[in-house]
Amino acid sequence: MYGFSEFSVYAENPIEEEDVVAERLEMQGKKILKLNRGDPAVYFPTMKYMIDAYVKALREGKTRYSDFAGIRPLREAVAARYRRLYGTNVDAEDIVITNGVSEALMFINSVLINKGDKAVFFRPYYPLYIPDLKINGGNPIIERYSEERNWEVDTDSLERSIRKDLKAKKRLKYLVITNPNNPTGTVLEPNALRELVEIAKNHDMVLISDEIYDEITFNGAKYTSVSKLAEGIPHIILNGASKDFDATGFRIGFTIIPGKDNVSKELRRRIAEYAKLRLCVNTPAQYAVAEGISNVSEHNKGIRKLVAEIERRINFAAKRINESQYMSVVQPRGAYYLFPRLDMKAMKFKDDREFVDKLLKEKDVQLTRGSGFGEPGHIRIVGLPPKDILETALNRIEDFCKAHSR
Amino acid sequence: MYGFSEFSVYAENPIEEEDVVAERLEMQGKKILKLNRGDPAVYFPTMKYMIDAYVKALREGKTRYSDFAGIRPLREAVAARYRRLYGTNVDAEDIVITNGVSEALMFINSVLINKGDKAVFFRPYYPLYIPDLKINGGNPIIERYSEERNWEVDTDSLERSIRKDLKAKKRLKYLVITNPNNPTGTVLEPNALRELVEIAKNHDMVLISDEIYDEITFNGAKYTSVSKLAEGIPHIILNGASKDFDATGFRIGFTIIPGKDNVSKELRRRIAEYAKLRLCVNTPAQYAVAEGISNVSEHNKGIRKLVAEIERRINFAAKRINESQYMSVVQPRGAYYLFPRLDMKAMKFKDDREFVDKLLKEKDVQLTRGSGFGEPGHIRIVGLPPKDILETALNRIEDFCKAHSR
Repeated sequence: MYGFSEFSVYAENPIEEEDVVAERLEMQGKKILKLNRGDPAVYFPTMKYMIDAYVKALREGKTRYSDFAGIRPLREAVAARYRRLYGTNVDAEDIVITNGVSEALMFINSVLINKGDKAVFFRPYYPLYIPDLKINGGNPIIERYSEERNWEVDTDSLERSIRKDLKAKKRLKYLVITNPNNPTGTVLEPNALRELVEIAKNHDMVLISDEIYDEITFNGAKYTSVSKLAEGIPHIILNGASKDFDATGFRIGFTIIPGKDNVSKELRRRIAEYAKLRLCVNTPAQYAVAEGISNVSEHNKGIRKLVAEIERRINFAAKRINESQYMSVVQPRGAYYLFPRLDMKAMKFKDDREFVDKLLKEKDVQLTRGSGFGEPGHIRIVGLPPKDILETALNRIEDFCKAHSR
Repeated sequence: MYGFSEFSVYAENPIEEEDVVAERLEMQGKKILKLNRGDPAVYFPTMKYMIDAYVKALREGKTRYSDFAGIRPLREAVAARYRRLYGTNVDAEDIVITNGVSEALMFINSVLINKGDKAVFFRPYYPLYIPDLKINGGNPIIERYSEERNWEVDTDSLERSIRKDLKAKKRLKYLVITNPNNPTGTVLEPNALRELVEIAKNHDMVLISDEIYDEITFNGAKYTSVSKLAEGIPHIILNGASKDFDATGFRIGFTIIPGKDNVSKELRRRIAEYAKLRLCVNTPAQYAVAEGISNVSEHNKGIRKLVAEIERRINFAAKRINESQYMSVVQPRGAYYLFPRLDMKAMKFKDDREFVDKLLKEKDVQLTRGSGFGEPGHIRIVGLPPKDILETALNRIEDFCKAHSR
């Protein structure tokens, strides 16, 4: 009998939801300023030494299936990087290479979630965490970061919500943190991380830390990977080549499960079985990323320049936003997004969705609505474009706000 | 509370299940003849014109996110190929590029299957169809190809099973055919395909045709894609670059849903939403495959040589197998596998699993057990290696059978 699965309706990606409208406008000859997708490779070319390694792999015939968990040189490079940067107790056997972090999320949810299970997120959250949970029949528990306190995590409030609902407690499977944060740019302090580890431990939740922007911190932020603090409790570290290595189109993610406990062991085993079902990840790209990580001096040259440039662009944009009477933003210290609060009372919009809809149609600027991140009344602006494009976009946004002011 | 999902135990891949043992033997200095993985790129280099296109894309900076459905030139090339080869009524909008066919299977099962739903397969089946169904809570209905009649499909028996269980009928979601077949090498005749289309239509099942080996046919077989015959009913054609284009490590699959009916429309829409969740497929590889398909004359030169060589190797191996008193095989006409029946009564093995286990340990030859394909008492041999390796492996298998004969 024809019909579709109950949970498949939950597949949705707010970051791309305006793409159809944008494409239509482009076909009418308009030039859209796209500040919706966080793709560094659009503005900064992927480094030549990585491209060279990719080409070398292709010329050497590395075009066949590789190991389901990823080629060993890449897994060893990822482990060595975490040991070197954060002192993490991890080796190649703890790592599965995935088709980006996205595939890791699919595997993790399918491995952990039964219908009715729950997982904890903080809003604003990266939107693509939620659909994979719901597709597997799970439900999110959404806690808040505190915008008043620079989007810091409120662990007391989290503890209270968990204790309030003892029945839900039994169904709690995992807790996700994104550090540095997308969309707010917050970098979590060691104390907050310690509290989160404690909560995950107390409530037998797997701690999942998405660290895809870990080398992109600035404005004096000092980065701590939770992998060092979480030793002894089951946790999963997600990372990849897309952001730190400026290679979004390679689709290479790292799923790291360093724990020596039985839950971690079983997690590793089941995720490996899922990885076998799709045979392997693009083989030559893995060689490129292995070189990308292993050649530390080349990488450091590139990432320093990249981060310095991102810092300039983000700070320029943040200053302009905070000069507006319609918006205000907490200064980001990592990643490359700005997540301003809109003064909705000062403007005639029903909600943030109407704001981004109209902005695209009237001003040819594509953003993402805050409600897509679980935080209505906000917008996400990608801060990667050069200053002149950012300036043009911000001027248009300001004009737009004025034109729709009360 | 720590714990794993009910259905995640169903993730398993019998083709790789001996890899750990094989790796251990290799570490002891043994050289394993691996006839378990169907990877043409191990024996035949991917064609240079495709590598050149891949390198060109990398040098041109095509390292960023691409469209969730795949780059337009690739989708257009896939559509044009089906129109040219089979007269299929299809265009670029009907196609989603996936991380191999494997990812397509994950999407399809998650989109179609509710707990308790059913899908129909014929045994022997490609093993990786089943786990994704079960992970989503579905159950397979396994019909038989008839080995006595050269592994032809028995549609009468299929009709009887469906009619027998009217309650199950309401839960039937899809019917899968693999043409050319892995592991038997059967190429389905137009009449059989017409009957299958009729059954899918009568019972409102989505027809799924895995055509990944469609250009690898020989021994006089004439290939028919069901896409021409299935016009008007909801169906999905799966294909990709791995086999016909000898590029397994690229991980580029094609999911083709050409129907103009409402079920097909909704299928396309929901699969697109899943594709958005993982952003995109490796970008530069898509350019390589777009060129791989579009440059028909280069491709034809390559595929003709490849198929001629495969035909020689398969026929050599089939002849040797049929000379054995312990095995017999139906002559393959497509793909590159041999699926011999073992004369279990003539040998002292409990089952085919024990056969492949001991063969690996005693003779350093790795095969896959027939029970992994739903067909006990058989083995699958990959017929891709050069004649001398095939001969060595077949000699060892023959010695092994003799040594264990009753």
